[in-house]
Formats: sequence, C-alpha cells, structure tokens
Amino acid sequence: MNTFGKLFTLTTFGESHGAAVGGIVDGMPAGITIDTDFIQRELVRRRPGQSHITTDRKEADQVELLSGVFEGKSTGAPIGFLVRNTNHHSKDYDSIRDIFRPSHADYTYYTKYGIRDYRGGGRSSARITLSRVVAGALAKLVLRQQGISIYAYTSQVGDIKLERDYHKYDLSIIESNPVRCPDPLKAIEMEALISQVKHEGDTIGGVISCVIKGCPVGLGEPEFGKLHAQLGAAMLSINAVKGFEYGEGFAGSAWRGSQQNDTFLPTNDSMHHPICNVETNHSGGIQGGISNGEDIYFRVAFKPVATLLMEQQTVTMEGEAITMDVHGRHDPCVLPRAVPIVEAMAAMTILDALLISKTNRL
Amino acid sequence: MNTFGKLFTLTTFGESHGAAVGGIVDGMPAGITIDTDFIQRELVRRRPGQSHITTDRKEADQVELLSGVFEGKSTGAPIGFLVRNTNHHSKDYDSIRDIFRPSHADYTYYTKYGIRDYRGGGRSSARITLSRVVAGALAKLVLRQQGISIYAYTSQVGDIKLERDYHKYDLSIIESNPVRCPDPLKAIEMEALISQVKHEGDTIGGVISCVIKGCPVGLGEPEFGKLHAQLGAAMLSINAVKGFEYGEGFAGSAWRGSQQNDTFLPTNDSMHHPICNVETNHSGGIQGGISNGEDIYFRVAFKPVATLLMEQQTVTMEGEAITMDVHGRHDPCVLPRAVPIVEAMAAMTILDALLISKTNRL
Amino acid sequence: MNTFGKLFTLTTFGESHGAAVGGIVDGMPAGITIDTDFIQRELVRRRPGQSHITTDRKEADQVELLSGVFEGKSTGAPIGFLVRNTNHHSKDYDSIRDIFRPSHADYTYYTKYGIRDYRGGGRSSARITLSRVVAGALAKLVLRQQGISIYAYTSQVGDIKLERDYHKYDLSIIESNPVRCPDPLKAIEMEALISQVKHEGDTIGGVISCVIKGCPVGLGEPEFGKLHAQLGAAMLSINAVKGFEYGEGFAGSAWRGSQQNDTFLPTNDSMHHPICNVETNHSGGIQGGISNGEDIYFRVAFKPVATLLMEQQTVTMEGEAITMDVHGRHDPCVLPRAVPIVEAMAAMTILDALLISKTNRL
Amino acid sequence: MNTFGKLFTLTTFGESHGAAVGGIVDGMPAGITIDTDFIQRELVRRRPGQSHITTDRKEADQVELLSGVFEGKSTGAPIGFLVRNTNHHSKDYDSIRDIFRPSHADYTYYTKYGIRDYRGGGRSSARITLSRVVAGALAKLVLRQQGISIYAYTSQVGDIKLERDYHKYDLSIIESNPVRCPDPLKAIEMEALISQVKHEGDTIGGVISCVIKGCPVGLGEPEFGKLHAQLGAAMLSINAVKGFEYGEGFAGSAWRGSQQNDTFLPTNDSMHHPICNVETNHSGGIQGGISNGEDIYFRVAFKPVATLLMEQQTVTMEGEAITMDVHGRHDPCVLPRAVPIVEAMAAMTILDALLISKTNRL
Repeated sequence: MNTFGKLFTLTTFGESHGAAVGGIVDGMPAGITIDTDFIQRELVRRRPGQSHITTDRKEADQVELLSGVFEGKSTGAPIGFLVRNTNHHSKDYDSIRDIFRPSHADYTYYTKYGIRDYRGGGRSSARITLSRVVAGALAKLVLRQQGISIYAYTSQVGDIKLERDYHKYDLSIIESNPVRCPDPLKAIEMEALISQVKHEGDTIGGVISCVIKGCPVGLGEPEFGKLHAQLGAAMLSINAVKGFEYGEGFAGSAWRGSQQNDTFLPTNDSMHHPICNVETNHSGGIQGGISNGEDIYFRVAFKPVATLLMEQQTVTMEGEAITMDVHGRHDPCVLPRAVPIVEAMAAMTILDALLISKTNRL
Repeated sequence: MNTFGKLFTLTTFGESHGAAVGGIVDGMPAGITIDTDFIQRELVRRRPGQSHITTDRKEADQVELLSGVFEGKSTGAPIGFLVRNTNHHSKDYDSIRDIFRPSHADYTYYTKYGIRDYRGGGRSSARITLSRVVAGALAKLVLRQQGISIYAYTSQVGDIKLERDYHKYDLSIIESNPVRCPDPLKAIEMEALISQVKHEGDTIGGVISCVIKGCPVGLGEPEFGKLHAQLGAAMLSINAVKGFEYGEGFAGSAWRGSQQNDTFLPTNDSMHHPICNVETNHSGGIQGGISNGEDIYFRVAFKPVATLLMEQQTVTMEGEAITMDVHGRHDPCVLPRAVPIVEAMAAMTILDALLISKTNRL
Repeated sequence: MNTFGKLFTLTTFGESHGAAVGGIVDGMPAGITIDTDFIQRELVRRRPGQSHITTDRKEADQVELLSGVFEGKSTGAPIGFLVRNTNHHSKDYDSIRDIFRPSHADYTYYTKYGIRDYRGGGRSSARITLSRVVAGALAKLVLRQQGISIYAYTSQVGDIKLERDYHKYDLSIIESNPVRCPDPLKAIEMEALISQVKHEGDTIGGVISCVIKGCPVGLGEPEFGKLHAQLGAAMLSINAVKGFEYGEGFAGSAWRGSQQNDTFLPTNDSMHHPICNVETNHSGGIQGGISNGEDIYFRVAFKPVATLLMEQQTVTMEGEAITMDVHGRHDPCVLPRAVPIVEAMAAMTILDALLISKTNRL
Repeated sequence: MNTFGKLFTLTTFGESHGAAVGGIVDGMPAGITIDTDFIQRELVRRRPGQSHITTDRKEADQVELLSGVFEGKSTGAPIGFLVRNTNHHSKDYDSIRDIFRPSHADYTYYTKYGIRDYRGGGRSSARITLSRVVAGALAKLVLRQQGISIYAYTSQVGDIKLERDYHKYDLSIIESNPVRCPDPLKAIEMEALISQVKHEGDTIGGVISCVIKGCPVGLGEPEFGKLHAQLGAAMLSINAVKGFEYGEGFAGSAWRGSQQNDTFLPTNDSMHHPICNVETNHSGGIQGGISNGEDIYFRVAFKPVATLLMEQQTVTMEGEAITMDVHGRHDPCVLPRAVPIVEAMAAMTILDALLISKTNRL
C-alpha cells in the first residue's frame, strides 16, 4: 500500500527521522533524457527552510539516483533513489515520546501497529512526500516531451481567496513570491497572514488549485479508473488534504444542467481537438471519466497543520490526561511547500493514464 | 480498470442497453449468511421509476446470484451476479446515434475507443452502478456482523441545504421521503424543487452526506491507501460526482490549527476506544489516513444530470453543428437514487480496509 | 485471486454444480471483430462427452456474451459471459457429502473456508476452466490479427511419449484424432491406453506441449514479469498441472553452456528478426525473460485425475476412516480436453504481455 | 513489473554495475524482531567469491536497512534497503559493448528498450537477485515465529543426481560443503565436476530441490493464486531457471491415479492436521492449490550459465557476424549460490499466502 500507480508506479520508504527517505519508480519509459538538475530544483521547491514562512528545519535534500539511468537516459529499468536525512534530532522528541499529539497520527499508528515511532511522526510525517516530488519530476520530464504541462498554485490561505478562474492569472509568476500565488497583491496578504499565525504559534489551512494543459483526448479508464477519481485519490493521499473537487465542484451542485452543460462546437484546432471543442469547460476537461482535450482543473483543500507551538490537552500512551507544550520548528502553513507535491501527484497520475491509454486499441 | 478494491473486489460488466449488467465479487469472507431479500431491497432503493421525481424508465432489476453461495452462506468462492436489462429501447436512441450529447461521455468514448455505442450512454450510463449496489449489499452483510453501519442521505439539492452536522438528524427516517433527506421540512422543499426542474425539462445537482459508525481503530493503509483516499476514489468513481471532502473539508481550510485540532481525552468506552476519545471530531474519524474509532463522515458533490429535455446545440460525429432536442425519460436529479450507491461504495471500501488490516500484525 | 492478468484480465466465477460458470474479460482492445462461432468451437473442444475417452457428462456449454460487443466488434468495455450448468445432478454427490475424496480439494477447501460444497468439487472442479477457454478465444482473435498463433498438443500419455521436437510434426492435424496428438500412430496407442485405463476405473496423466509462433521481440517484463514466469504461472493454475518447463527445461540442466548457448547469426528476415537470428533455439524463444522473436515452446505436466471408479480408503468430515466407492462418470485422462485450456492460457498471457510492451517506450 | 507479491511485496532496483542494488519490502507485519546479522548471513550465502567453484568477483555485499525498523523491531512501515556495488569494472565490458552475447539478454533488452546497458548485463544480471535474499530473510524471520521452515539444496549438477526423496537426507548439513548438497559423497563428485567445467571455461546446469515444513492447512487462493502457481512463478522469475515441478512432477505424469492418490487417514497430530493425515504425500503438500498441512516440496531446473570463457560466434549491434572471446570472471555453475535465492523466493511466497489466508474468514 506504499505503491502508487498501475504502469508508472512509485513505491516509497522512509521516516521523518530514519536514515533516509526514497523510493523506486517503475515503468519509466525508456529513452527519456534525465535532467537531474531539474529533479533537484523540484526538490528545492519542497525543501524546508526556503523562506521565513516555512519551518526552520534545514535539510540539504540532495537526491541520489541509484539505477535506471545510463549515459543520461532512462533505460526502462526501475529508478531507485535516496535522500539522506541529515537533520534528525530524535532527542527533540523525547518530550512527546509517551503522548499522543492531538490530530496527529500518533494514536492511530500505535493502535494499528502496536509500535510507537515517536521521532517526528515517523512514517506519517510530511517529510516522506519528498519521494513524490522526485517521481513527479521524472513524470514531468516525460509529459513535457508529450506537450503536457502542469501548474499548481496557492489559491486560498485562511479566508484570503483568489477568484476561481485560473484564466485570469499569469501562472508563470508563481515562483516570484514565497506563497506561490499568481496574484501578487493577494500573495502579500497571504504572506502577512501566515507570518501572523506563525507568530502566534498557530497554523492555518488553505486551498491549492491545479491546471493541466495539453492532455490528449482519451486519458482515464472506466469504470473505476476514471481520470478524476485517480486524480482525487492522488491528491487525497497527500498529508493534510481534506477535500478534492474538479470542474465546477461543490459549487456546481447548486446549478441547473442547462447552466452547467458544455456546448460542443466544430473544432477550431484539429490537432488537439480532433472533432469538436467545448464552448465552456464547466466539466473541467473530463467527461465520463475520460479527458476531452480541454484544460483539466481541480482544487485541493488542506487543513491547518496539527503541530502548534502552544499548550494543548492530550493523553499519554497509558491513557492519562496531560498538558503538552511543544517548542521548536514547525510549518505555520503547508500550502507553499505543497504546491510542488500537488504538481508531482498530478504528473504521475497523468503519465500513468497516458501509458494505459496506449493499450485501448492495437 | 473495471475492478474496485484489493482484497474484497468488485469487477463489473454491462451497458445501459446490452443484454445484462452484473459483476463478480471476489474476496467475500466465507460463512456469511446471504440475505438475498436484503440485496434485492437495496436494489429497489436504486431502481428507476420509484417515485415521481425519478426517471420513468421501468426495470424490474431482479438480481440473480450465480455462484459463491451454498445453502445460504458465502463459501469464499467468487459471487457472480446478473441483472437482465428488460427495458432497452435501442430505437429511442436513433435520433442521437450520430451526435455527441453535451457533457455526456459520447465524444470521449468515441475518440478513445473508435467505437460509438449510442444506446443510452452504453458503458458510461449510470445504469451500471447497479452492480455496485449488489456488491455493497454483500459488504454490508459482513459489516453488520462486525457492528459497522453506514448512513448516507441527501443533504443538498440545488441551493436548498441541510445544516452540516449529522448529529442533529434522525438518520433512521431517511426512507420516509422520496429525496432520502433526514429533515422532513427540507425534504418537502427539495422535492418541490426537483418537480419544478423536471417540469422545465432541466436538471439539478446536490450533495450527499455519509456517516460510518462503529469502525474499529486501524483501518486504512499508509502511504497511498489512506482510508479517506480510498473513500474519495470510491465516491469520485460514481457517475456525476465532482467533489469529495471529509471531516471539516473545504470549509476547514479557512480555520486555524488551534480551532481544528481534536483534543484527546481518557477513554470513556474502552471497547471501541482502547486508550482515548476525542473531544471534538473535526478530523472526521480519520487521522494520518487511519480510522481512529470515531464516526467517519464525508460529503459528495453531484453535478446536475447532463440529459435535458430541451433544445441544445452540439456537433455530429462528422464535426458539424446541429441542434438536438431530446424527448423521453430522464432523471431530473440523481441524488435520491444515488444515496444507496454512496452507501455501497462506502461499505466496499470499509470492508476492504478491514480485511487488509487483519494482516498488519500476526 | 480469481483474476488473471494485468492489462488483459479474466475474472471468473462459478462452481461445478451451481447455476452457471462464467467470467469477465477486461482490457479487450476495442475494434476487434468478435467471431462468436469461433468462441463456441473452442468451447466444443473442451466440452465433456466429445469422445469415448472423455467423461460422459453431457453439457451444451453454450456461451452467452452479455456485454462489451456492439455491432460485432469489441467496444473496449468489459465482456461479461455466462454458460449455464444444465447437467447438475447434485444428488449424485449425496454419497460423498461427508467424506474427503483422496487427492481432491475437499479437505483443503473445507479447512480453509469452513464450508463444504460437496457438489462435484464445487469451485475446485475443472469445469470452471470453461471460462478460460472463452477468454482465451477472445485473446486468440486479437493475436491472430497480430500474426501470432498458438499450437498445443498431447505429447505424452502415461509412458507413451512423442519425440520432443515439435518441428517434426504437422501441428495442423491435431484435431483429427481424439487425443489431439500430431503423431497419428502414437495417437492410436494413447487412445488404446486411455480406453484400457477407463475400463479399469483408473486414470492416467501425461504431458501437453505448446508452441507459440509469430511473437515479436520484446514481450515480457523484468524482473518478476518475465514472459516464461507468466506462462508458468498461467499453466500451473490449470487443474491437475504439476510441472512446467520451457526451452530445454529439466533435461537441459545436465548440459554444458557450450552445448546450450544459441549462436546469433545476421538476420535472414528483418521483418521478424530486426538484427539477428539464432542458429539453434535451446532458449525456447525467451532470453532474459523477454521474447526474442523465435518460436516459444514449453511443456506442461498433468497428474492423473483423482476421481477413480474403484474402492479407496479415506476419512469422513468427523475424521473417521471409511471406504468409498464411486460410480458414475469420470475423465480417465484430462489431456485431450486440456489442450484448448493450455492454448487459452497461453493466448491470454501473450496478449497481456503484448499490451504491456506497448508502454515500454513512447 | 519489478514488484513481487500481493500483501508482502518486494520491489527491486539496480543493475550489475550501477551505484547500488536494493529494494523496498512492503507489508512486513509489525512487531517482528529484526535480526540484522541473520540477514547479512543470508547475503553471505549468495555472495560471489565464497569458494573456488564460484565467480572470483569480490563484493562486500553489506546491506543497509534504511527504514521500517525502530528499536530493533519492524514498525509496519516499508523497509527500504541498499547494497552498494563496490566492484564495478565497467571497463571490463568495453570489448562487448557493441555485441550481443549468445543466450544473454543483450539482444532482447536492446530491442525492447532501444538502450544498451552493456555493463555486465545491467538489469538482467543475476546480481540483482541480492535484493530477493534480503527480502527473503525478512520473510524467514516472520515464518520462523510461525513454525515454518524452508530447506533448499542442490540435488543435481550436470548428470550427477541425488535420489529424489528428501526424507533420506539430513538437510541440516547442507552448509558443510560448497555445493550445498545434503549427500556428502555426491557433493564431492559435484564439486569435482564444477571444477573441471570451470577449468574448461565452460558452465554446467543443475536442479535445486526445496522442502517447506510446518505450513498450516489453508495457504493458497483459488483460482489463479494457487499456492504452487505462486511458487512456480516465484521460481521461474529467478535468472537461468527453465523449469518447475512439485509433488511427483513430470515423472508422475506417467503414473496411474490409483498409484498417485494420497489416502487420507484419521489424524495423528491434531495440532498440525486438524482432521486427517495423508498416508503418502505424492501431492507435494498442496491439493486444489491449497496447502494441506504436509511438507511442500518442489524442484527447480537451472540451465548452464551463458557466460563462457571461450570463443563464440555472434553478431554486433549492427548485425554483423563477429567472433567474441571473453576473459575474466564467471560462475561455472550457479546452483550453490542459487540455493539461498530459492529459499528466499519460497519464504516470500509462503508469507504472502499466509497473510492473505488471514482474510478468508472473519
């Protein structure tokens, strides 16, 4: 259950404070030029300590590719990779080793497995999403060659929200601010809110939006491999995610069919749209679970991080009430660092669907 | 890709207007008493034509279990089952055989497979969800024996919404009104809205909420088999679903961690909560992807049905603009009939997780 | 665990004396012409009662395709199918309902599942291989279009053996004798031996050989999806199979490398062998787990059928010693009827590998 | 396709001359004491250079466990592991970089992937079986706790064969000779033959036998997860394996049913055999694909290694005939080093089946 995907797969290992985190990518098509600088740059986007609004934990997060690449190209063999954990202060966790932190996975893991890995969340730590970024970067290298590109961005922090429609923004400027928001003014507001929350020892949630451009018609497999179901499963597997919607999503539930239906028009670009275009794209680029050649867009809800730098009531492993008070490092808001993770999961999902779609007809 | 689940699996077949729809359930634990009346009653809850606010299509929807049951008990062998399609007026579809209906799967299926099954949506029809209800009923029979119960209900139709908190409702009265809503007054409003929409030849979306009670601690498998990711994938695979959220969901994205964290308290029921309880349940019964013994609750967004009884612009298979005008039968709102489908998918997901959890320790 | 394959999959259901046996084929490429007569003819090759050396059980074995085919072509949707059991004399089994037949699955099934389906072996009956023949026939229809053909034949019955090398026989004459052996003289000997064994109420084993011609280079996926490992798993899943070998197999274990290595020569047919040929084919058409464009050949060992028409000692479900004496119908030798099953499993395996190989490069 | 197993899984990576080989074990039950010395000792059994009859390649083969173990016990998280390649003389392979070695995977890999990793076989090298030994050692730690033990041994080298029946040997003395054969006299003969073959620059094949003791009744899942089919697939995935048989295997094909059937007797040990014993065990401990509580035994055929230290004819990547002459290191016979690999694959298969069997009944 630590494997994602069917033909392009990622299997991961590692804990927050173990020796290393890493994984194996299987099903990488052969002959793809592997740009290791690109992979490392993607990791830098996820790395802790990249700005004043992320955790102060410092990690080099230098990835080593161990196999599957020869003379700069993928060989079709599995790609093993590894990032050593360098900053693992297990001692920092002595104070919490016998207690269950509220809204963390301490209690559920302990009850499920009978083992308590108290070092920073162990396997449930968001640090292990690092492997997803590596695999996602590999998938992006393939997709780029196919003309498919993926843009995620922070669209909400607390109650500061962007307008919904991604068309109105220049998605190429996302990296120009630390919250990764395409609206420079909203970005400043969001940054200020996160700073304030951090100062209070508290945390805040938000929403990441994502757009996928350039998908051909035909990705996604009925009945249970619908493209949006695969995307949803991918996103919901990211730590702290509480919701997923695509197209008009929850808001569209209040609409009438006559408002939401997308009228087909004769094609204006027979390269990408062999027979027809849609006038509107309320469907979010997916109809009947299969991509229709339009932009795919969706939104992912993140809850506020559970680690607070303030007193909280909880219980010990023996079931006794206790007051805990955490000091140290924490992320007041995961959204900025989660943007590359959302992109990575989307890239893997799309590549997997693309490979499967090659087998629909001979 | 027509298989759901890992240990308890459902594989389905069938089209809206083919000979039959059905499936195979594999992994059914042996020795379970198979209550065929219960299975049939679940199908009746999904059946078309059950009230004035559903489609007029008439189907007996009589299920035949073909294997895997002997002398009234499951044997551990796969359970094959079948429902004959009796009301398949293929001729009804002559008028649409060469056109792509807006926001249907006609265009994507045709482009993906190179084949047009124009008979009522073919494989993309919601009729094939029937197989899920059968498999879900089998899963419910197992879960019931384990003390786990599942309650779905219509919580929104158009802009008529229930209060969010399921605690305030008596979920046992859902079947007393045709919309399957636990608030009798809101139910009347919803019913009136659906009637009006039907009269206009239009359709309307909504939201179904679901609560799962009695789950033990420990269901769900990190990293990619998180319980809510499995539930989300299950729900998003249902026709017309556009969004999934659990716990505080999208709304909780605007909260602070100090508001959303669930404080642990010493146990008040060591049977179901071996070590501790939560004071609040903003987490929705799942922490770190693993059930924590509290109620699991989530919400599923449905778009309005794409079939409208009014004129729409579209294109033909040759890419030419055309005006289409559909007459006949349609569901103005799928929510009432989708309630048992949501329950079925939840039941299968929980049973699958329960079986896997048996292998976490020896 | 009742599913075979990864992209082209068969999931089966049914028991010897239940209502029906059948299955679902998923991953059938779209656009293939479905020759239902061919499918039925393949079933006839497996049918009981086809000659004096098979069981006298009479079954029409008429298959009904329930979905996935429209206007004579596969649509890409799953193909559900069904064969009704017409000759199920459950009463015949009253005498054995409380005893474990020697070398049958009665005891293991009962201990595993806690349920005794005493009707003719239930799920463990060879009758359920019928579904494999249907799925294999579908796979053959695809392979034929790709220029791939499969020939199985009886090469040993008891101690009557053919020479090993398939080149020396005309494989097109297999259907001309009831044992399905390409050597007409040996066929007569085999038939006589089976008749004699039948007369004694005993049974006899044998070996089926199989050759696959026309495979392109590149089928099979390292490390665990090696083509011969997939073929082996497929064959070993057939009832009564006790061994599998390919190329020079067990006999080649005694050879030296200098005898067994296949020398490469410059290509003599650049269509099927892009770069080179082999001088000999001791490898059996597979090198490093991947097809090399040469004929693939392998052998499958079948034990004698466990049902004897003679007295045997055994125990009851309560563990008491008892003498059982079976009367009625039985197959003295499964080889003739198993030939189409071996072909079917080979066809499914090759098609699955062919589909996966489409995704090795983009 | 580089993943083995369903619940207890191994995913591998690495090439003969890349940076490292390793893998990820997922599904390890929590709470198992991890004896790292034992794992290392198993690797030493597979290590090159261990005696005068194996290759002279020297590798430390020191394994590093990177995750999934905390305070000496498995946590239920995936166990990532790594062995660095220290002795990778890529230059040694300059002479073969443009040619296809006979009966190696050079040609099939190149044609399949379009990439030539000429360094010692790359992904197709037997060096990658190292990961299987690590995973197998982990599985053995679990099985040992369940009272299940596995014994493989060399039973044939060239035409020097042991008697078939494992009962006649003391399997605890296998490690006392370099061929890992329980018959000390035959071991000396085998060793002499391998030495002679090595001296000639040639290679030789053989057979490994394996016995599994202590399995409970009920392992193996019909229809396609039969225990022997899983064992067969596991064994056939090992480099150089050409055949698999269990119970009486190919030889039993010549028998009559009345000879081969195993008579049931009232139990003589209700702990391991709840209801009955078998008088003989021709079935090889598996009936209907399910373990029956008796010893499981099977045989695995290995072809001679393809690397010869003598002149051979072959072709270049451009398809031109060439004479190749390899110097350096090679294994004249893989059998001695393959014994721990056979055990490892058996251990993983049995543990996987054991975990699945926990879900047959609730």
